[in-house]
Amino acid sequence: MYDHFPISDRAKELREKLIAFMDAHVFPAEATYAEQVEAGGRWCVVPVMEELKEKARAAGLWNMFLPHSKPGYEGMGLSNVEYGMLCELMGRSSIGSEPFNCSAPDTGNMETIFLYGDDAQREAWLKPLMAGEIRSCFSMTEPEVASSDATNIQTEIRRDGDDYVINGRKWWSSGAMDPRCKIAIVMGKTDPTAEKHRQQSMILVPLDTPGVTVVRPLKVIGYDHAPHGHAEIIYDNVRVPASNILLGEGRGFEIAQGRLGPGRIHHCMRSIGQAERALQAMCERGMARTAFGKPIADMGVTKHWIAESRCEIEQARLLTMHAAYMMDTVGNKAARKEIAMIKVVGANMVQRVVDRAMQVHGAQGVCQDTFLAGAFANARTMRLVDGPDEVHRETIAKLELKAYRN
Amino acid sequence: MYDHFPISDRAKELREKLIAFMDAHVFPAEATYAEQVEAGGRWCVVPVMEELKEKARAAGLWNMFLPHSKPGYEGMGLSNVEYGMLCELMGRSSIGSEPFNCSAPDTGNMETIFLYGDDAQREAWLKPLMAGEIRSCFSMTEPEVASSDATNIQTEIRRDGDDYVINGRKWWSSGAMDPRCKIAIVMGKTDPTAEKHRQQSMILVPLDTPGVTVVRPLKVIGYDHAPHGHAEIIYDNVRVPASNILLGEGRGFEIAQGRLGPGRIHHCMRSIGQAERALQAMCERGMARTAFGKPIADMGVTKHWIAESRCEIEQARLLTMHAAYMMDTVGNKAARKEIAMIKVVGANMVQRVVDRAMQVHGAQGVCQDTFLAGAFANARTMRLVDGPDEVHRETIAKLELKAYRN
Amino acid sequence: MYDHFPISDRAKELREKLIAFMDAHVFPAEATYAEQVEAGGRWCVVPVMEELKEKARAAGLWNMFLPHSKPGYEGMGLSNVEYGMLCELMGRSSIGSEPFNCSAPDTGNMETIFLYGDDAQREAWLKPLMAGEIRSCFSMTEPEVASSDATNIQTEIRRDGDDYVINGRKWWSSGAMDPRCKIAIVMGKTDPTAEKHRQQSMILVPLDTPGVTVVRPLKVIGYDHAPHGHAEIIYDNVRVPASNILLGEGRGFEIAQGRLGPGRIHHCMRSIGQAERALQAMCERGMARTAFGKPIADMGVTKHWIAESRCEIEQARLLTMHAAYMMDTVGNKAARKEIAMIKVVGANMVQRVVDRAMQVHGAQGVCQDTFLAGAFANARTMRLVDGPDEVHRETIAKLELKAYRN
Amino acid sequence: MYDHFPISDRAKELREKLIAFMDAHVFPAEATYAEQVEAGGRWCVVPVMEELKEKARAAGLWNMFLPHSKPGYEGMGLSNVEYGMLCELMGRSSIGSEPFNCSAPDTGNMETIFLYGDDAQREAWLKPLMAGEIRSCFSMTEPEVASSDATNIQTEIRRDGDDYVINGRKWWSSGAMDPRCKIAIVMGKTDPTAEKHRQQSMILVPLDTPGVTVVRPLKVIGYDHAPHGHAEIIYDNVRVPASNILLGEGRGFEIAQGRLGPGRIHHCMRSIGQAERALQAMCERGMARTAFGKPIADMGVTKHWIAESRCEIEQARLLTMHAAYMMDTVGNKAARKEIAMIKVVGANMVQRVVDRAMQVHGAQGVCQDTFLAGAFANARTMRLVDGPDEVHRETIAKLELKAYRN
Repeated sequence: MYDHFPISDRAKELREKLIAFMDAHVFPAEATYAEQVEAGGRWCVVPVMEELKEKARAAGLWNMFLPHSKPGYEGMGLSNVEYGMLCELMGRSSIGSEPFNCSAPDTGNMETIFLYGDDAQREAWLKPLMAGEIRSCFSMTEPEVASSDATNIQTEIRRDGDDYVINGRKWWSSGAMDPRCKIAIVMGKTDPTAEKHRQQSMILVPLDTPGVTVVRPLKVIGYDHAPHGHAEIIYDNVRVPASNILLGEGRGFEIAQGRLGPGRIHHCMRSIGQAERALQAMCERGMARTAFGKPIADMGVTKHWIAESRCEIEQARLLTMHAAYMMDTVGNKAARKEIAMIKVVGANMVQRVVDRAMQVHGAQGVCQDTFLAGAFANARTMRLVDGPDEVHRETIAKLELKAYRN
Repeated sequence: MYDHFPISDRAKELREKLIAFMDAHVFPAEATYAEQVEAGGRWCVVPVMEELKEKARAAGLWNMFLPHSKPGYEGMGLSNVEYGMLCELMGRSSIGSEPFNCSAPDTGNMETIFLYGDDAQREAWLKPLMAGEIRSCFSMTEPEVASSDATNIQTEIRRDGDDYVINGRKWWSSGAMDPRCKIAIVMGKTDPTAEKHRQQSMILVPLDTPGVTVVRPLKVIGYDHAPHGHAEIIYDNVRVPASNILLGEGRGFEIAQGRLGPGRIHHCMRSIGQAERALQAMCERGMARTAFGKPIADMGVTKHWIAESRCEIEQARLLTMHAAYMMDTVGNKAARKEIAMIKVVGANMVQRVVDRAMQVHGAQGVCQDTFLAGAFANARTMRLVDGPDEVHRETIAKLELKAYRN
Repeated sequence: MYDHFPISDRAKELREKLIAFMDAHVFPAEATYAEQVEAGGRWCVVPVMEELKEKARAAGLWNMFLPHSKPGYEGMGLSNVEYGMLCELMGRSSIGSEPFNCSAPDTGNMETIFLYGDDAQREAWLKPLMAGEIRSCFSMTEPEVASSDATNIQTEIRRDGDDYVINGRKWWSSGAMDPRCKIAIVMGKTDPTAEKHRQQSMILVPLDTPGVTVVRPLKVIGYDHAPHGHAEIIYDNVRVPASNILLGEGRGFEIAQGRLGPGRIHHCMRSIGQAERALQAMCERGMARTAFGKPIADMGVTKHWIAESRCEIEQARLLTMHAAYMMDTVGNKAARKEIAMIKVVGANMVQRVVDRAMQVHGAQGVCQDTFLAGAFANARTMRLVDGPDEVHRETIAKLELKAYRN
Repeated sequence: MYDHFPISDRAKELREKLIAFMDAHVFPAEATYAEQVEAGGRWCVVPVMEELKEKARAAGLWNMFLPHSKPGYEGMGLSNVEYGMLCELMGRSSIGSEPFNCSAPDTGNMETIFLYGDDAQREAWLKPLMAGEIRSCFSMTEPEVASSDATNIQTEIRRDGDDYVINGRKWWSSGAMDPRCKIAIVMGKTDPTAEKHRQQSMILVPLDTPGVTVVRPLKVIGYDHAPHGHAEIIYDNVRVPASNILLGEGRGFEIAQGRLGPGRIHHCMRSIGQAERALQAMCERGMARTAFGKPIADMGVTKHWIAESRCEIEQARLLTMHAAYMMDTVGNKAARKEIAMIKVVGANMVQRVVDRAMQVHGAQGVCQDTFLAGAFANARTMRLVDGPDEVHRETIAKLELKAYRN
């Protein structure tokens, strides 16, 4: 159906295998996963996930996210179109990415270290990350400032002899609550006096470095997302070797830009996966539940919602696949407008679709008995993750208006 | 500003006292309340609430909800317009009703027992409820059927000698998780063969009766609402004296109808209170937070949202006050369309306003640091509580079309 | 139903008479009016309207708009609440205001001359206007500049001896196409160097003054609104006696402000009248037309629209009546936010309601066979008349945020 | 940018030529066209259009719509994807299709006669139609019944000896007002007792046949669309030879189905063309017009609208191209859901985008000085043409739910 986009036979094969794996192993494990998280005190290693990882690895569904390859660090060489298609499938389950070592923020962190790290950094951190032995977090957002404007960042990364000393407060360091999380990529300013986009740097900080304090887990509309979690972290005189810097001083903004595009494709395709599952639930519930003598699905308003949802999902998917295609063919920079568009469209679309699905489910839709309430909280949050809608709409408008400024 | 509605000097005085009380005691207690719930293991008695209740009672702000009076059961005689106005004020805080013994479902239960109970029932249950010593729940909704259609109810209340025996499964029995909750009003069918609206009855069931099992707390988009909670309850051969029936067999539907109108005024005015607080937060945050060199509040889209929110809140308030006025003057039955309208308008309005406020707060808006995330979950849920939007829109349309059916 | 607003017995009596008059005379004349306009070459005197005016005057339904009275210029002394209520009734027909000498812009012009004119000006222009013998226009908006910002006005009113000489281009001078239109109130700058709000003046310009050229009629989404029309007018060295100035030099902005509030109540209440008629048409058509075996009105989506329309109309009406009440009790200035709110709410509401009614009518709804297509064009235009929505939303937000700017 | 869709080099070349032709000849002729229609009394042959046709034919831009070829009837063999792409370009101007002999309903009529007509019918009607010498109309919709349900049709086509006799009233016979319109394809019932989808037939009726009366032109929200026009036609005992039937008795529904798919691609792509032009106007006006000291385009709300419009246009285009691609690859039947989706999405999208563009233009946007008011009337009408949105949403939902039944 989408075969006008270039998709290799290998990618199609992965697609089939992934569909089968999700059905056979992932969906059936959702309930167990929730129970084991609860039983383990939430911030724990979850046995069923480790089993899923083993199975996925054995099935050849591992590290599909990495388009590059180097000896010892083999990626799959999938294009954005191809991997995006897989993200939708994994995204249908809230535990659907980790089995394949394809969950955020690890994928972005791994690609960052692959591209901008040196051999020692790769050996130390990329190796165990790609093996699924440890996890990582990305410490960028700060509570005191509007992070949608990156120049606001206040964390200080100060050179001191052979070390850097880091001071700052970060939050929304997702994944940092996980006991398996060992390394953070921290963004901060090495030179506040430099030109605006050369002030920031990124540096690798092992989470067991003295001075790193995980203050608390943040919730997302009532959900703690354990064991992953979203951490607030204080970096208080944290000292790491100067060799931990990524790419070099003042290159932080440049690295950040590079990881944005693919990340948005992934987020958006996962949102589409969530929306597809919500639409499916809407149809199933609509057929199963009767009120005033006929199935809810046969009521005019329900049909209206089903139709609108189908229209919105198709459009969002085509837009995202098209953005991925642009990235694959003309590059991330030329695809800036497309990338900004999917950010806005995907997040708003999934909120609307899940909202309708909840409504069709009645009170059941807001409680813990379906995936919908959690999906709703996530969907709402997607409109803020990586910058609020408004910032991206500004970007789109700015690029659109460019042609009209003399 | 709303003085075209009839509001007595006494109600205006209560209004001033309530505003002062909320500011002096309730808002400052919100954080403590959350901490004490957590510290108490969630399903606990919360000391700060008991203190607030004492203070409110001393201040003469107690049981304002009850429009009626009998010796020993003194209500305040407020009209729906007057009490509605106070509900908005209490509704600004999620802990804002209980201090005044004005929280759902106790208010509806108390009025039900006041109006339809006999002396013994009042002595046993209304007395301690009005004294704030115990709490109550209302067991109507069932997991297996669409409860928006009351004739679907499956719970059985079977006469057996001098007793009734109750069998059924209920959920969304809000308040039943609270250790202080001692009594349930249960709706079920005493005669499934009777005329459609004479099948149901309501009966008083002490929660410690053998056969009553609280299965689990339901969550509302991630929130457990402890210690109040929303319970799923199994009634398995629960036997209570025949004298526990309210008003008589087959009168359940009639009682249910009676409590709906006022309850919707209360819900809706509390939603307006939530929305007002969200708008306030939107303005404050908008003024305090700067991005790209100017306060967020001075950006066009933020101003658009502030304006839309103000317009929507004003309209919802006028509509609700007007519905209350209709109830006060022409009665609940003649005001059916107005009551259905506020149900739809209030719930959708507050979801939109809180959604905008969250967006202005950025990532902070979805976490536990403001009241917004909790308010958002509640607002979304209001579109399902007491029947989904769609059922009420059907009612409005049916009443509107009546004039056109010859 | 709205008797919480203060409405005198006399106003209630007028209401009943007006309802009866509309039903007996105005609605039945709509088709004749359209035919006579066409037969008369569009920019003509329309016989049936002159007959309606005579009847209305005889019925005591004349000049109801004027709240003031002076010997020779008797208004009815109705409050904004009372007259607003009547505007809704007249507004149900596009020819519903003129029979009662209550159409814009004459009402605003008459009140302006009443309040700010001198005896000679009143004798010359107010007398025949109140008698319904002539009509008038208001020349403010200019094609070259954004008129929502009044300081942009470029028309020049230059003192020259005992005269003023006027130069400028105006458009949207509504009513100027009518052969009965004899006088314009023109806004322009007498002193471009004065303080911003003291630069403008208003002056009376007879339309037969040399130098006044009506360039062309403007259409409103395909409608010419003949014989009233919306004119583009060139004022080319138009010379009038200095005594034609209203109130004095530099007072134009002040006069403009004064007429805004009541005008918005009138516009908004007329929009509500249009919306009520559209909802009625939606219900009637919905009951009369069958598709796929049942009346369209019984389809879920139609019912959804009927319900939403009823909710929106009620809210807009209450908001507007409340704004009128504020104007009556605390004055136009204190009611600024309320006045801005109804401007946005009323125009958007009527567009949505008429849009739905058209949809229920199918292709019939867009052609000349119902009032809907014309009402739709008007409704869309209301979002621009007297400043676009956005300007009013800015005003609302500014007033809302005032409390937060220390 | 859309090169993932299969587009031949020849189609790309046509695209470039068409862009150049539109810029060089069509846009510059818009004003002249309007003047000549007015000068000619509206229902006239318009000289500039005949010139444009000659030029387009000379440029090889003629009859691009026809995918088929027969000796004497040469089409261009373009796929739906390819021709759809060209429709967008032509659709940017309301006079943009006729120069290329590509306007509705002629394209559908020509394809119908090509496919289902016999040699004599082709010789008589298809030949002059393809030569651009005459025009045609399609008489299907009836004023008395909901035409979205085709079984409602009441027009009778009765066999009488060697003739058929036609009786009925049709409206929305677009193009029939044009003096060049010579032939109608009329849909009616030959056998009301047959199986539901075998009752209808289509028959060729020369407009000069006795008994054919064009009653009046219908307007579309104030526009008469002269000289094309939308006619109400009475067929009163209209007698034509039996050989005028298309394909055979009872085949009308079958033929109607066949022409729907491509017609919707054309309509939708033209809507996208209108939307692109509206967005362009929005940007240009936004840059050119200043209010409160800065360009309107730099205001937050305008940027929000530009961004939303870009997002919506891109999605609608991808959806439509994808539907065309489906038709090209798996056939119209398998693409039914996609075709229904673009009908809903395209019409609603263009109404929203044009609405925003009008708002940015202020009062100018609703008058005759820009293409926007006309585009707005058209856009609104597109939500009803070929069946209202609701019917298509029902279709989408029905197809979506199919998988969930039994």
